[in-house]
Amino acid sequence: MIKVGIVGGTGYTGVELLRILALHDEVEIAVVTSRSDVGMRVDALYPSLRGCIDVCFSLPEFDNLADCDVVFFATPNGTAMLMAEKLLARNIKVIDLSADFRLKDIAEWEQWYGMSHACPDLVKEAVYGLPEIHREAISGANLIACAGCYPTATQLGFLPLIEQGLVDVKHLIADVKSGVSGAGRKAAVSSLMSETGESFKAYAATGHRHLPEIKQGLSQLASEQVGLTFVPHLVPMIRGIHATLYATLNKGVADDLQALYEQRYANEQYVDVLPLGVHPDTRNVKGSNRCQIAIVVPQGGDTVVVLSVIDNLVKGAAGQAVQCMNLMLGFNENKGLQTMALYP
Amino acid sequence: MIKVGIVGGTGYTGVELLRILALHDEVEIAVVTSRSDVGMRVDALYPSLRGCIDVCFSLPEFDNLADCDVVFFATPNGTAMLMAEKLLARNIKVIDLSADFRLKDIAEWEQWYGMSHACPDLVKEAVYGLPEIHREAISGANLIACAGCYPTATQLGFLPLIEQGLVDVKHLIADVKSGVSGAGRKAAVSSLMSETGESFKAYAATGHRHLPEIKQGLSQLASEQVGLTFVPHLVPMIRGIHATLYATLNKGVADDLQALYEQRYANEQYVDVLPLGVHPDTRNVKGSNRCQIAIVVPQGGDTVVVLSVIDNLVKGAAGQAVQCMNLMLGFNENKGLQTMALYP
Amino acid sequence: MIKVGIVGGTGYTGVELLRILALHDEVEIAVVTSRSDVGMRVDALYPSLRGCIDVCFSLPEFDNLADCDVVFFATPNGTAMLMAEKLLARNIKVIDLSADFRLKDIAEWEQWYGMSHACPDLVKEAVYGLPEIHREAISGANLIACAGCYPTATQLGFLPLIEQGLVDVKHLIADVKSGVSGAGRKAAVSSLMSETGESFKAYAATGHRHLPEIKQGLSQLASEQVGLTFVPHLVPMIRGIHATLYATLNKGVADDLQALYEQRYANEQYVDVLPLGVHPDTRNVKGSNRCQIAIVVPQGGDTVVVLSVIDNLVKGAAGQAVQCMNLMLGFNENKGLQTMALYP
Amino acid sequence: MIKVGIVGGTGYTGVELLRILALHDEVEIAVVTSRSDVGMRVDALYPSLRGCIDVCFSLPEFDNLADCDVVFFATPNGTAMLMAEKLLARNIKVIDLSADFRLKDIAEWEQWYGMSHACPDLVKEAVYGLPEIHREAISGANLIACAGCYPTATQLGFLPLIEQGLVDVKHLIADVKSGVSGAGRKAAVSSLMSETGESFKAYAATGHRHLPEIKQGLSQLASEQVGLTFVPHLVPMIRGIHATLYATLNKGVADDLQALYEQRYANEQYVDVLPLGVHPDTRNVKGSNRCQIAIVVPQGGDTVVVLSVIDNLVKGAAGQAVQCMNLMLGFNENKGLQTMALYP
Repeated sequence: MIKVGIVGGTGYTGVELLRILALHDEVEIAVVTSRSDVGMRVDALYPSLRGCIDVCFSLPEFDNLADCDVVFFATPNGTAMLMAEKLLARNIKVIDLSADFRLKDIAEWEQWYGMSHACPDLVKEAVYGLPEIHREAISGANLIACAGCYPTATQLGFLPLIEQGLVDVKHLIADVKSGVSGAGRKAAVSSLMSETGESFKAYAATGHRHLPEIKQGLSQLASEQVGLTFVPHLVPMIRGIHATLYATLNKGVADDLQALYEQRYANEQYVDVLPLGVHPDTRNVKGSNRCQIAIVVPQGGDTVVVLSVIDNLVKGAAGQAVQCMNLMLGFNENKGLQTMALYP
Repeated sequence: MIKVGIVGGTGYTGVELLRILALHDEVEIAVVTSRSDVGMRVDALYPSLRGCIDVCFSLPEFDNLADCDVVFFATPNGTAMLMAEKLLARNIKVIDLSADFRLKDIAEWEQWYGMSHACPDLVKEAVYGLPEIHREAISGANLIACAGCYPTATQLGFLPLIEQGLVDVKHLIADVKSGVSGAGRKAAVSSLMSETGESFKAYAATGHRHLPEIKQGLSQLASEQVGLTFVPHLVPMIRGIHATLYATLNKGVADDLQALYEQRYANEQYVDVLPLGVHPDTRNVKGSNRCQIAIVVPQGGDTVVVLSVIDNLVKGAAGQAVQCMNLMLGFNENKGLQTMALYP
Repeated sequence: MIKVGIVGGTGYTGVELLRILALHDEVEIAVVTSRSDVGMRVDALYPSLRGCIDVCFSLPEFDNLADCDVVFFATPNGTAMLMAEKLLARNIKVIDLSADFRLKDIAEWEQWYGMSHACPDLVKEAVYGLPEIHREAISGANLIACAGCYPTATQLGFLPLIEQGLVDVKHLIADVKSGVSGAGRKAAVSSLMSETGESFKAYAATGHRHLPEIKQGLSQLASEQVGLTFVPHLVPMIRGIHATLYATLNKGVADDLQALYEQRYANEQYVDVLPLGVHPDTRNVKGSNRCQIAIVVPQGGDTVVVLSVIDNLVKGAAGQAVQCMNLMLGFNENKGLQTMALYP
Repeated sequence: MIKVGIVGGTGYTGVELLRILALHDEVEIAVVTSRSDVGMRVDALYPSLRGCIDVCFSLPEFDNLADCDVVFFATPNGTAMLMAEKLLARNIKVIDLSADFRLKDIAEWEQWYGMSHACPDLVKEAVYGLPEIHREAISGANLIACAGCYPTATQLGFLPLIEQGLVDVKHLIADVKSGVSGAGRKAAVSSLMSETGESFKAYAATGHRHLPEIKQGLSQLASEQVGLTFVPHLVPMIRGIHATLYATLNKGVADDLQALYEQRYANEQYVDVLPLGVHPDTRNVKGSNRCQIAIVVPQGGDTVVVLSVIDNLVKGAAGQAVQCMNLMLGFNENKGLQTMALYP
């Protein structure tokens, strides 16, 4: 049995890791840390886990994690970069669900995240945790920078078009909508049900931290710097991301885009290209690690629309992290991830 | 006191008309029709109206409406076109909240609405009920084709940019999100709370009936045929529409767009341009007749983003209809419409 | 015009007061205080109020309020008791929406609210702000302790049964459900949408602060100490309270309870007894000052069930406070309160 | 592999059976019927199941089911009673999720369900599918009448108190709240999101079909006819039931109720007695087969309050049905049921 540690076990990605790993039969959850809840039983904070986990929160210190084989960071940005080096030195694999190792350009990271990077050397080594693009590198990696939630839905949606060079990559538009769990489990007036329920709004329209991450990923695919307008929105629901992506088809493109997507993802068990005419619905991936995608060219014009949905806490965070772990450790990629969406 | 009749009083736009008109001090609600509920007290169906209306549903027949000064149609498409002519002949003003008289191109209307138009001659005479564009014509009109909900939010959002010729009108994008009350009060599995709650999806991405209506309106503003990609989405909330609009600025445009919008709408009490940096939220217009708008040019690029919100049942339907009535009858434009948004 | 001050204008009861008073034509909103937002425009915090209020937040200090005719306290418990005396001495009427003056038994207050009472002498003078029971006293009062939200729904529901001595007052049960706005606009993990949406729970089942308030009110009606089991619950919605009340009919009671309730409330414009067989629904009072009530005796047994709904922010807080103000100042009781429920 | 048939695979209990059984490794889903969708792929109707089930809907006819080992009825009331006899004669086990075989008193069944019972002889033979009470009988049964959703939450909550004779069984009160999925997947205005979202109401307060079912079960436990007031309510959420149960403790009862509940359910993996002071929350059982229970005696009085939550579609329907199947076929009781609650 692999011993797993989770640093930052009290946020939504942390508890989602616990939900998934509790059913993973190759893994033992050995350590769950929380600075504020040390000594408390994990299932006292999360009664949904009663009977499935017999661990108390411990301090997020190296000694507590030293016997783990894998450590997940489900922490706010700025924590993993302080601890990763020491863990890696001990041959412990590190899977970071935060943004600390996602951007290769340190200056850009520091600008968007508003702090100095404590561990820039490791950034080069970190593999971006999006298996559909970097499966091989993930399999051999020791440090994973898991893809963010918006970036996962957006990149999987644009990928085949950009790989094939079919669209104007200077004017991509990503109009993306997220449930409120994306804001995490921290006390904030803006995340109250009275503030977010029964209403809809855009936020950070002038620039969101996931913009450089998405641009970095798409630019790698395009082999040139892409131009992207990314507008995130808040949906009055708890889980789910829906990306509506727009691009202008290059002149003369007459490909069968439905076939293109189906072929590109034919061997991807967690990317499901829907039949022509079906619209994805976030409810159909709720609680599952799946991305469902549809492609439309309205009125046969030169604008292509891609609809891409994920559960932000699963394929957009904890599920993807476990998928990466399975690859790193040579397990079946679907271990712990077979749970189906909870409909309705 | 003006005598008002409402044909189709059992849908959401009908009951919203009743809520608004009950506080309008120049108006008496004389007739409310419902084929299926004849004889039932209106407030027995809608206990929220108890004490405010003392009328029973009657049959939607000409004789019952003959003494009215104004008749609103809050009916499914295809009903107003059967009755409007006779009412107008009697000098009764007709305000149609359905789509029967919105499209000037009869063939296009018949294609999108799937039926023959029963009254094509009146289409020419009908004035499109969007006061911020057609105030003068509305004031003198006898027949109003009220603007649809998506078209209102979208046209008000694009209007200043297009009037001033600042953007590429061949590649407009409208990513619009609506609460579920837009689907009306009819029994349909797809509108069940178990099907629409806690989830988000696009629908009709290949083409929605409001597409030709929006294109017609924007093309008039542009004095040329516009190109528009319009993708409607369903939000798990009851009321509200949020339009996220994208356009490419023409080369060399260096206008102060914030100032442009503020000036264009300076005298419009129901269009409120928010201060720079504020994002509109549908909750701030819930129950009110207001459209709130923000303009952003992310990263100073050549893509402009406009955010525009309304309550689909008020500014997107019943409120706008009453605003039109006030203009037609020479009342203050705000009569019955002073109610503020219900926050939270 | 009456000059009104609102202390604590940034919570939900504060902004609801603003929404209501903005349409009250005898009142000018002169002062709105907020310690944390001094100098900020009120409508910058609450864009729903744009155009309706032209005031900036000021400090909650006596000098700022000295020119007011009436001051509302929409503050956390423990604030009004520090300022009321000085305001009253200046002949300013005080309407407290918090709990500071609700309980006549100071010791009990101190036990439930966990602090010493700073102004016990005024407690005697304070009139309990529930017009349907204390209209006359309110009309002559200078200091009002507005009834709480749960207490309003519960007392109005039980009132006729207890006034008439028809039930066993030693074993009353109030199973009451509230929307999340009742928890106020303060940052708390337990009020996040991810924690309260799509779920239902009881809380404070061993004892809630509104228990002694309800018992005090019902005991006055009963002229004896009542026994009450009160279990509050949290509903995944923003506004609304639904009280389901159970009592055992005394032996031999054969009264027509429907008639009893209709007669008791015949002259109360804000208590609406529904026709036999109709169930109240919180949506039908959302945004309105109305309480709707139904009475059932299931299977003709000896248990009577009363269903009573209000909007917790209106009849349960700000609306009731304005109703009290209207009585105190001799205005029509319905000034500012004519807005109808927002359905759907 | 056991061959399973599901009659009525298009409702919410049907699709929930599919979600659970798809992960049950002893079972093959051989037949799913739907009169209205014959020939359509099951995963075309339910995209959440794509990749997990490779079956098309067939007609609900005996021949199609003849090769099954077990047939579940996830049908409206009145269907199972027409087909059960023939299936049982073929040695096919029948598990009915509808109410056809729940009430032992045929006359009472006919009164509450408004039809003649087509198969009264089998009612005697049917075992009530609530394993915590009837485990042994279920293990040997061929025909199961699965307990209803309200009855499951209510009976599990009251059970220890009544078994031990601690309360006045003539005046039990069950104030129970359900998510809207309990109303099923049928087009009805009353189940629209615009009608049920953001609101709360009681319904059927004068009498609900689950009343006789609960009374039958509790009367068996009490060995006398119980008196019960049962008021169901509709919560604006999709899944979950919360029962708040009230009973009067018999004079002199001084038992440790917490210990009593813990002992009674010590060996029940799907009934989880929460630690003293913890309130159950429906979110903590969403998607799981678990019932979580808390016991409170407020203010040390003579009224005991039990709080009991389930997921109405799992422990209240499909999960319980699979739990029964596991018992009938000698599988581990938890096969297919290990999925944990989806929090948040």
